[in-house]
Amino acid sequence: MHQDHVSLATGQRSLGDPAIAYPLRPPLTRGCPRTSTGRIAYPVEVDYAYDRVPAGLFDQPPGPDIARWAPLLPPLSAPTLGEGGTPLLEACGVLVKDESRNPTWSHKDRLNRVTVSAALAEGAPGVVVASSGNHGASAAAYAARAGLPAIVLASAGSPPAVQSFVRAYGAAVFSVPVERRWPLMTEIVDRLGYHPVSNQTVTHTGHPYGPEGYKTIEYELFVQLGRAPAAVFAPTGYAELLYGVWKGFAELRRLGVAGTAPRMFSCEPAAGGPHARAVATGAPAAIVEVGPTDAYGIACPAGGHRGVRAVTDSGGGTVLVTDEELRAAQRDLGREGLWQELSGAAGLAGYRKLGAAFDGPVVCVGTSSGFKDVGVGSAEIAEATTFDEVVANLPAGS
Amino acid sequence: MHQDHVSLATGQRSLGDPAIAYPLRPPLTRGCPRTSTGRIAYPVEVDYAYDRVPAGLFDQPPGPDIARWAPLLPPLSAPTLGEGGTPLLEACGVLVKDESRNPTWSHKDRLNRVTVSAALAEGAPGVVVASSGNHGASAAAYAARAGLPAIVLASAGSPPAVQSFVRAYGAAVFSVPVERRWPLMTEIVDRLGYHPVSNQTVTHTGHPYGPEGYKTIEYELFVQLGRAPAAVFAPTGYAELLYGVWKGFAELRRLGVAGTAPRMFSCEPAAGGPHARAVATGAPAAIVEVGPTDAYGIACPAGGHRGVRAVTDSGGGTVLVTDEELRAAQRDLGREGLWQELSGAAGLAGYRKLGAAFDGPVVCVGTSSGFKDVGVGSAEIAEATTFDEVVANLPAGS
Repeated sequence: MHQDHVSLATGQRSLGDPAIAYPLRPPLTRGCPRTSTGRIAYPVEVDYAYDRVPAGLFDQPPGPDIARWAPLLPPLSAPTLGEGGTPLLEACGVLVKDESRNPTWSHKDRLNRVTVSAALAEGAPGVVVASSGNHGASAAAYAARAGLPAIVLASAGSPPAVQSFVRAYGAAVFSVPVERRWPLMTEIVDRLGYHPVSNQTVTHTGHPYGPEGYKTIEYELFVQLGRAPAAVFAPTGYAELLYGVWKGFAELRRLGVAGTAPRMFSCEPAAGGPHARAVATGAPAAIVEVGPTDAYGIACPAGGHRGVRAVTDSGGGTVLVTDEELRAAQRDLGREGLWQELSGAAGLAGYRKLGAAFDGPVVCVGTSSGFKDVGVGSAEIAEATTFDEVVANLPAGS
Repeated sequence: MHQDHVSLATGQRSLGDPAIAYPLRPPLTRGCPRTSTGRIAYPVEVDYAYDRVPAGLFDQPPGPDIARWAPLLPPLSAPTLGEGGTPLLEACGVLVKDESRNPTWSHKDRLNRVTVSAALAEGAPGVVVASSGNHGASAAAYAARAGLPAIVLASAGSPPAVQSFVRAYGAAVFSVPVERRWPLMTEIVDRLGYHPVSNQTVTHTGHPYGPEGYKTIEYELFVQLGRAPAAVFAPTGYAELLYGVWKGFAELRRLGVAGTAPRMFSCEPAAGGPHARAVATGAPAAIVEVGPTDAYGIACPAGGHRGVRAVTDSGGGTVLVTDEELRAAQRDLGREGLWQELSGAAGLAGYRKLGAAFDGPVVCVGTSSGFKDVGVGSAEIAEATTFDEVVANLPAGS
């Protein structure tokens, strides 16, 4: 592990106007106050003293604990659960970054190490998160690890297995009607002083430090490939992942470590797709209605400006994928030994849907384990007691 | 990754009589034919040319893909899913080796990389496994990865989520009455030529190469700690894990890499416990009746000689833990950010039950993710719409 654990973070900068800078603390968890309006909220991001990045930072092997990238992260006060260091595996003609290998089996752990660290640094008495799935469980796990109480505001619609998951870490979990989740979170923040690790604004801004954790995916990809990929396809809900990976690359280019940049592709459920809408209309962010989809982890009505920036700045694009396309991608990944959540297969589904050729490695981020899906637990298994019954039911080609 | 991927495996040796040696192939999947009787089956293990182990093998960092330890493993013909390289985390006063971070979220992946490799090497047209849980899913995943069909003989009693898990990898999965599982597997082996990656003998012998995969846990522990631990507590069903970890250490001592050895403790459900019975009675292996327990992953009536050898050769012991003790350990690990399957918490439960002091690091192997538990999906979540309802239901101390 890299020994220089001192963060080089220097402040916060508006994504609404890069001329507007703020001190590093407190984290602006309600976006940039000067550029945000009642209809569009702009997030801030973290600035660093890039001229002081230690030589050899990108020569180390990837492995658990993102503290190895500490110079380019906000201060990591919260203890690790061994997040990161996930393998990059060939499957279905692309490279899959298997984020189901994180401590709570999704990419969200990279974000929550950083956001729970911010809660500790601010002296908050606890953290609060509105999430029905991976983000809530991950926040609860990192809060528990740090000795902080956590409140998770879940919706009644999340799969039963995921409800057990969120509860396993000792958080106070409440089932809250969806229209009450954000107001209630704001009240818990304002009245209890709990640190919010999910969004509080009209279009998504989330936690300003959150995407910094996702940058470590790009650092690992660079070390694993020995170069930047040609394209990255990411399951996209609020686009914190997409933006984080993009920012990681932008830093590598700025530092002269990498010469080329990947094109970034947001892969959203066709039932919604606020980033596809925003890019298509030239808006800084968009809000859409979301129809029925089983990809609940990325079915977000409110998009954010980060996703628009990642797509446009990188020369990438937006892709909408149907549940049927997601299921096909999920099934085919399973046939090569990788069981991803339906949302987690959106990267591959998006790559296939786009059908474009790239001059270099294509990475699809596989965000999460298949255990978190809506349909888990409803599989029907054929009964057999005799050899003949087994043979009669073998798939063709067995 | 270590560049010398050539296996130094030289043959198989009986655990019933170390003077009895066999060629490396075919793997003796029905135990040692010369020492086994109708009441006790003795497994064989793999021998290596230890004098040819490359210098520096144990200087490399742990990471995904156990091929880095290829010299001390049987030939790895099957492609990797990035198994191994799991973190070692402090929790509840011990060090937890978090095996839920493997490709199918349990330690079984280390075994199945090795056993599916054997199936490929033997030219088998497929693999067959009798398992209701982690082993079946992992075998299916590695078979899929290797392009081999797989048949999984499950029991109707496994949790519904786990049934989805096993099916996700495209295997042919059948629900088979428990008394028909082993006879049916034998028939599939004999008539279809499928390679068996689970047990076929009266006391457990399993696949002769299987525990070799688990040795890599010990190699990683040695590198992570810079020494051998003082004690290892392992969830124990058939004791392939316990024996594999022990053998890994015995090799490090033989090679002069480590000077001390851990004491090995088998942690079995109090509802059964064939290894505790065998050690207590001085038998080479035992068969017990298994009463009700939710720790289905380690609730095995037939024990094996490997577990007895690991415990006695290491100066360790056997511990029986109740479901209540398992639940307490599982809950407390969750409170520190680690959600283990009930069986996966048996190591910590056993350490606590024993109550002994050790002169050095104590490692509990956390074998698997909490998603695989019987009770998953039945958690009840309190409803809340107002701030007052949230506050009234916060745990004390929040």
